[in-house]
Amino acid sequence: MRLEESIIIGRNAVLEAFRSGKTIDRLFVLSGCEDGPVKSILREAKKTDAVVSFVPGQKLDQIANSTKHQGVVAYAAAYEYAQMEDIFAKAAEKGEDPFVFLLDGIEDPHNLGAIIRTANLCGAHGVIIPKRRAAGLTATVAKASAGALNYTPVVKVTNLTAAIKELKEKGLWFACADMDGTVLYDLDLKGPIGLVIGNEGEGVSRLVREACDFVASIPMKGDIDSLNASVAAGVLAFEVVRQRRG
Amino acid sequence: MRLEESIIIGRNAVLEAFRSGKTIDRLFVLSGCEDGPVKSILREAKKTDAVVSFVPGQKLDQIANSTKHQGVVAYAAAYEYAQMEDIFAKAAEKGEDPFVFLLDGIEDPHNLGAIIRTANLCGAHGVIIPKRRAAGLTATVAKASAGALNYTPVVKVTNLTAAIKELKEKGLWFACADMDGTVLYDLDLKGPIGLVIGNEGEGVSRLVREACDFVASIPMKGDIDSLNASVAAGVLAFEVVRQRRG
Repeated sequence: MRLEESIIIGRNAVLEAFRSGKTIDRLFVLSGCEDGPVKSILREAKKTDAVVSFVPGQKLDQIANSTKHQGVVAYAAAYEYAQMEDIFAKAAEKGEDPFVFLLDGIEDPHNLGAIIRTANLCGAHGVIIPKRRAAGLTATVAKASAGALNYTPVVKVTNLTAAIKELKEKGLWFACADMDGTVLYDLDLKGPIGLVIGNEGEGVSRLVREACDFVASIPMKGDIDSLNASVAAGVLAFEVVRQRRG
Repeated sequence: MRLEESIIIGRNAVLEAFRSGKTIDRLFVLSGCEDGPVKSILREAKKTDAVVSFVPGQKLDQIANSTKHQGVVAYAAAYEYAQMEDIFAKAAEKGEDPFVFLLDGIEDPHNLGAIIRTANLCGAHGVIIPKRRAAGLTATVAKASAGALNYTPVVKVTNLTAAIKELKEKGLWFACADMDGTVLYDLDLKGPIGLVIGNEGEGVSRLVREACDFVASIPMKGDIDSLNASVAAGVLAFEVVRQRRG
């Protein structure tokens, strides 16, 4: 399941990566660069889930950490993404109600890794992340997950609210972590459940919040705003564990 | 309360820092360097809590990220440390049973910052860290604490087991997070309490574990070993919050 490289630079290398079926999370192309080889790469990218961005040369040098990129840089996933079915298969195999994490734009790879680690240890059956504006499964994420990526399926979706709708039809309830909700200890978190954790800075987005069944709040006693996203995910996840142990 | 620099290089700058009363966490001196000015610096260091290490030139260049260190580099704390009394004053001011975190060798500044952030938000009155083999209050820690360092006192002690003994005499009970203990949900965490979180790799050290009143275990259902240290601290801390709300 483990793949190797994380950043692929140069036209041939990137084209080859697409053609070999490697999972590319993002493709960066030099602005204004539209010759034949680049068009071929863009055509291949279109067949996949890769997010394409056109960027100025200086930015591209930074991303590639080199000037030898020939106008093309790709971020390959260090791990393969799973399918939604894998999550349900895992729950069925254990004879448990489905329990998933849905991450609404976690950008820090250390947070994403720590959350996947938590998902594994609290007995969740999988993690769902969005394609855009979020960290993908890079080598840094794999390291921060402390091996959990080898066990816990991570599914990448285009639209989080559509994913919530799909999973609700399969019987899941969704609780998003946010302020001004019901204190989590007063909620019933025992059935098939999806926990929604928002972006580090902006929290859960409006549409995702509206798609959830309830808002779970962690009671805050301090002087500052909010917990680190991976700590909040841990507190919520282990309240599910506590309630499920009966 | 906020101070500025984190790394101080050069003989005059370091000597001046000590003489001005800046809090220096660590002093690095070039091995074999024993001339007059260096001796003056070592004399000043001895009056403080600074941990002194003698290192080879190449290592010192790395630490200083420069070769212009003249054989002397110091890590200054980005924030001032508090005194044990500050923690009790905070608890008394709020009319609450004392609630402290004791960190047995957290090395990653992001984890230390996230734990101080959690300590603030769960209503703990302070955090105790050891002088050696642990991250100090650097600028990275301050950033990861998301402002919590402005409110939550952090006390640095030479000996953690001595600190536990001192606090036990003031009525605190100590629970360390480790495997093979009592499931945390079955413990009574309502009174004056200290939560002990171990090092990222090695967990809680033997002497500290033995000094604790009980071992609190987070039930693990997954395939890997343990939670990220700051997530474990969060799960434990909010179980205290849950129990204290009655």
